[in-house]
Amino acid sequence: MVDIKINDEIRLTDDKFLMIAGPCSVESEEQIIRVATQLRKIGVNVLRGGAFKPRTCPDSFQGLGEEGLKLLAKARDATGMAIITEVMDMDELPLVAEYADILQVGSRNSQNFSLLKKISRYDKPVLLKRGFGNTVDELISSSKYLSMNGNKRIMFSERGIRTFEQSTRFTLDISAIPVLHEKTEYPVIIDPSHPAGVNRYVEPLALGGTAAGADGLMIEVHPDPPKALSDSAQQLTVPQFQNLYTKVKNINAVLGKTVI
Amino acid sequence: MVDIKINDEIRLTDDKFLMIAGPCSVESEEQIIRVATQLRKIGVNVLRGGAFKPRTCPDSFQGLGEEGLKLLAKARDATGMAIITEVMDMDELPLVAEYADILQVGSRNSQNFSLLKKISRYDKPVLLKRGFGNTVDELISSSKYLSMNGNKRIMFSERGIRTFEQSTRFTLDISAIPVLHEKTEYPVIIDPSHPAGVNRYVEPLALGGTAAGADGLMIEVHPDPPKALSDSAQQLTVPQFQNLYTKVKNINAVLGKTVI
Amino acid sequence: MVDIKINDEIRLTDDKFLMIAGPCSVESEEQIIRVATQLRKIGVNVLRGGAFKPRTCPDSFQGLGEEGLKLLAKARDATGMAIITEVMDMDELPLVAEYADILQVGSRNSQNFSLLKKISRYDKPVLLKRGFGNTVDELISSSKYLSMNGNKRIMFSERGIRTFEQSTRFTLDISAIPVLHEKTEYPVIIDPSHPAGVNRYVEPLALGGTAAGADGLMIEVHPDPPKALSDSAQQLTVPQFQNLYTKVKNINAVLGKTVI
Amino acid sequence: MVDIKINDEIRLTDDKFLMIAGPCSVESEEQIIRVATQLRKIGVNVLRGGAFKPRTCPDSFQGLGEEGLKLLAKARDATGMAIITEVMDMDELPLVAEYADILQVGSRNSQNFSLLKKISRYDKPVLLKRGFGNTVDELISSSKYLSMNGNKRIMFSERGIRTFEQSTRFTLDISAIPVLHEKTEYPVIIDPSHPAGVNRYVEPLALGGTAAGADGLMIEVHPDPPKALSDSAQQLTVPQFQNLYTKVKNINAVLGKTVI
Repeated sequence: MVDIKINDEIRLTDDKFLMIAGPCSVESEEQIIRVATQLRKIGVNVLRGGAFKPRTCPDSFQGLGEEGLKLLAKARDATGMAIITEVMDMDELPLVAEYADILQVGSRNSQNFSLLKKISRYDKPVLLKRGFGNTVDELISSSKYLSMNGNKRIMFSERGIRTFEQSTRFTLDISAIPVLHEKTEYPVIIDPSHPAGVNRYVEPLALGGTAAGADGLMIEVHPDPPKALSDSAQQLTVPQFQNLYTKVKNINAVLGKTVI
Repeated sequence: MVDIKINDEIRLTDDKFLMIAGPCSVESEEQIIRVATQLRKIGVNVLRGGAFKPRTCPDSFQGLGEEGLKLLAKARDATGMAIITEVMDMDELPLVAEYADILQVGSRNSQNFSLLKKISRYDKPVLLKRGFGNTVDELISSSKYLSMNGNKRIMFSERGIRTFEQSTRFTLDISAIPVLHEKTEYPVIIDPSHPAGVNRYVEPLALGGTAAGADGLMIEVHPDPPKALSDSAQQLTVPQFQNLYTKVKNINAVLGKTVI
Repeated sequence: MVDIKINDEIRLTDDKFLMIAGPCSVESEEQIIRVATQLRKIGVNVLRGGAFKPRTCPDSFQGLGEEGLKLLAKARDATGMAIITEVMDMDELPLVAEYADILQVGSRNSQNFSLLKKISRYDKPVLLKRGFGNTVDELISSSKYLSMNGNKRIMFSERGIRTFEQSTRFTLDISAIPVLHEKTEYPVIIDPSHPAGVNRYVEPLALGGTAAGADGLMIEVHPDPPKALSDSAQQLTVPQFQNLYTKVKNINAVLGKTVI
Repeated sequence: MVDIKINDEIRLTDDKFLMIAGPCSVESEEQIIRVATQLRKIGVNVLRGGAFKPRTCPDSFQGLGEEGLKLLAKARDATGMAIITEVMDMDELPLVAEYADILQVGSRNSQNFSLLKKISRYDKPVLLKRGFGNTVDELISSSKYLSMNGNKRIMFSERGIRTFEQSTRFTLDISAIPVLHEKTEYPVIIDPSHPAGVNRYVEPLALGGTAAGADGLMIEVHPDPPKALSDSAQQLTVPQFQNLYTKVKNINAVLGKTVI
């Protein structure tokens, strides 16, 4: 596996496990600073938060936009955490790249080849999510657009695929972990929040992905989930996350890895 | 169903069935003029042809770009056909909109909400393909981005979904036709070429979609398929298409519709 | 394609199209005789009707059992129609085989190899349904159990597969028709009722399957669908069926086939 | 969760984790005794082995039949292990029930309601596999056939479902674990061998299922996998299994459970 340098302090290597956490959307300065501070205290080094949100319907909350990016930067200043946020659109790319430590490409853009090509010109770590209708081989092909200009700081994210089973929102495909490890040199981060759809299924999926050999987790955590402006059902509270964090640390210990 | 005015001569209405045909990619002036002339003679009024191609791998043929658009315009001048071509990218959108009579949004961009929003500002007919991992309800949600500025000239295209069955490239979901007709007022165009994957399955899928109540077909036809630079296996020859065209006309006659 | 002799009068050959219709379940003498008489008048030669019903839950109506078989035989005597009914179980096989002209193997038994082996010893036409989770290749493998003792009177039935799309109960895979025709010598009967799930989608799927090259249809028709003891939502009324029958005849005429 | 008494020594309860291992098929006395002895030494208490094999094609190895059952009984006598084997067929049921401590219902029989009803009359623990095309809700419905006569010693087995992803044979759906725990009172045993399809993916899936909260594992282990008469690619060697067993024990320790 290639080493992924995220900032001067954090580097994801074979014997490490990267924990990313934060709210689905950045909603206010109070919200993001509060949750970032709590997560940092637990030990999390990378803060997630959406500023531009891809929403199935045009009348859903679309994120705070640039204001959201500024709030993420404030949270970074306040806590020292690295920040990851989604870039949906090539017009927003220069702006997002100015603020984010890690660029996230969402599931619906996993085969937006035009966007991937533009991102490839930035020298930034990228988290590339698997499209929920895409095969592992297509995900690997998409990563070739990202690396075409030499950037090797790519992380895959498995976040569930579409199947006939509807008791969860998507079916988390943990077999993608060994398959991607066999076929590529990039780490695999499991997103258990989106396939779960509801917060009570997040922990089993997170632990399952961890034990199956993932290199990290990205988990939605909100200081007050019922009030969240998006994905309210699936976000964990901070105490739920803290409990999960301990188990993730212990399972990684069994596997010889340290959580960063 | 809303009427879809395509140009001064062609208008898709309840009692009409729209035939769109042409090569996967525009490859040369000779190729596109030749096939357009032959298709026009058969009775086809709308010519398809890719100038910007979404390719899974960055090292595959990516299309002729603006040169391809110019060749499509020449084919329009030579034959009087309307032209449809895919827009992959918001940067290319003004250029593509200058040339195309119908803008096509491909399967991989079916939930590229940023692109859809930009397209919504153009007063052009749009063919919106269903993402191969998307539900019918998601396709309908995507159309709301296109119509958010009042454009109602939207056509859906069903082009196969991902399923466990691998004997064809995708599984054409003809039940999407009655479901879309029930839930929306837009016509549904069946693309049998992409789910078929090979040309010998194109005719059964085309006829099946027609009889299931589709409002049109979009079929890949190449003057010399083995020499095609993309999707060579699935393109029909002109004689194969002519044969299919006759059957489509006859089935539409049974259903009380005229092929335009 | 092999010829399938069903009885002295009915033989399914390349230029014929077999229409099978009848209620989901045999419910009473009055019901089955009434619907059989009406269907026969329209031109249907094969009557379907369930006596032993495979039900997902043990507390659903399980069919009339042997009494149902006797009522089917009465309907045959009254109308001259051939009868087809499902055999669920090797214990019931001798009994069902005594009454039925065609043995039907349901979707959930498509890989019940023990049952298939037992059926192979009977010299009867068999309708083998595709399991909703099975590939076309698995369906073909199952047919080898049926033919292992020399019986070649096998008909496949495509009845929809499980996919992520939930706006219909199953996704009818019409591409299975040309694939099966290419790989085997047996005819393919489309069942549009089970994938539709509701009766307003039955006609588009039936016509789509017909035009895609199917060799027949099997359609659920009930004299009074709202009162049906099973699958009430998806059964057609007799007038709905009559209307569909005319269209099926006309589409077959386009394709050079006669409905039997 | 209900307690599942397997024999006088083994009882699966909330704080326990059941390990089942053994070859895909019983092939010879030497093979089964050798592998049973080795597995017992590692700490395994339940031995699996197929005597009647459900095979997609009639010309594949169909198992040793009754002879296989006798060899399993010999292995039980030699080691004290409980034995689990598949019952495919109601004719074989009395015979299989005579030998087996746990009756296994395979994936293809998960909705063979006739068989389930017959099994319900035996007072035996049953391992009910999920059909690869079945939803979790259908699996639960099938269990109601098994419990209709009062038997509550039911264990579910998740063994992968059919999806569009083909880089593994099936997609292991670990979210079925929390969903089944929420909706029923029966334990869930993960079978990682069948979804993996190849032995190098078995360990990640096994550990993933364990950490996701499964109540046990069933793993194919063969003394000499390349010589196996069925499923040769996916069976583990004994040393591979031993290594996996240690990790499973350690992960269960994190979760507060003991492996039995």
